[in-house]
Amino acid sequence: MSDTVTIRNGIDVDQLLATIEAIKDDPVVGTFTFKASSRWRDGTYNVGEIGRFVHAGQEDESRDEVFRLDGDEPPVLLGRNKGPNAVELLLQALGFCYAVGFVANAAARGIELTGLEYELEGDLDVRSFLGLDGARAGFTEIRAKGRVSSPNATKDQLDELSRYVQDTSPVRDCLTNPIPVTTTLEIR
Amino acid sequence: MSDTVTIRNGIDVDQLLATIEAIKDDPVVGTFTFKASSRWRDGTYNVGEIGRFVHAGQEDESRDEVFRLDGDEPPVLLGRNKGPNAVELLLQALGFCYAVGFVANAAARGIELTGLEYELEGDLDVRSFLGLDGARAGFTEIRAKGRVSSPNATKDQLDELSRYVQDTSPVRDCLTNPIPVTTTLEIR
Repeated sequence: MSDTVTIRNGIDVDQLLATIEAIKDDPVVGTFTFKASSRWRDGTYNVGEIGRFVHAGQEDESRDEVFRLDGDEPPVLLGRNKGPNAVELLLQALGFCYAVGFVANAAARGIELTGLEYELEGDLDVRSFLGLDGARAGFTEIRAKGRVSSPNATKDQLDELSRYVQDTSPVRDCLTNPIPVTTTLEIR
Repeated sequence: MSDTVTIRNGIDVDQLLATIEAIKDDPVVGTFTFKASSRWRDGTYNVGEIGRFVHAGQEDESRDEVFRLDGDEPPVLLGRNKGPNAVELLLQALGFCYAVGFVANAAARGIELTGLEYELEGDLDVRSFLGLDGARAGFTEIRAKGRVSSPNATKDQLDELSRYVQDTSPVRDCLTNPIPVTTTLEIR
């Protein structure tokens, strides 16, 4: 037992290690069902909500309020810029995912960070979306550039960590490997 | 030539058809590079920015300000719920993408909509993210449920439209087919 709490990069390392042990003991502790919803407002403008999720078969109650997000298109894609568009959110998700992985794993390895940024970009050809022959509907390529500062890690340690983060990133896995997506429609 | 402007479901159908013609004439008009960035704040909390993008080789100037997004994890995943997490944003992106596709294509087909909602959920096992043997790092399955209301379309028309939207959805394509993702790290 220890009375000290190890917080590194803002991550509670003891909680992280305890979580890993708990999941080793019972894999159900590692299972989640995340959720989001969207409601159409007008034209290309939609409002999204992200609220509670299911963890280990039970609803997590830590969120009292939902997160609201605006989604829209720019004028050149028929919208009014009331929010980012869907594929821009996808890039944002990749940046957030990489950052969480980098910071948490750095904390576990004793690596202190003083800065971490990501720039993401993706190439997209809208011909398929508009019903024309052309490239695939989604991004043909995504590029991510990280910038990191650490007072106590070597270049080799940071490069190795970056590779590890890529290999274990949930969002990167979603983008680089196929996911089964089932879609149903209820007509009211 | 017509002096009337056809707005259906909030979509300027004339602009939509003119855009399709412009891309048929010059495929470069259909090419985009979208961007996002993220900056680490503390622990699992990151702040994202989505600003200008490149359209047909030129920076689009329609956005005067960037969209700011908070990304964080819930306490059970070492965060403080300052924002949704990365995989929740991915689900949100799918909902927004489906909605834009449904509304725009309905407009083009003369289908009027009075309501459109999506509920998304995805199953995720965090073992790989935490360095344990287990399922893939990303979602093992995503489920999307749409609900639509239309005063002038048949069930068959709406079902067919839903299938078309899935086939041409950029985000669905990103999730169901592999994308090359290149990641670099600069050490400061």
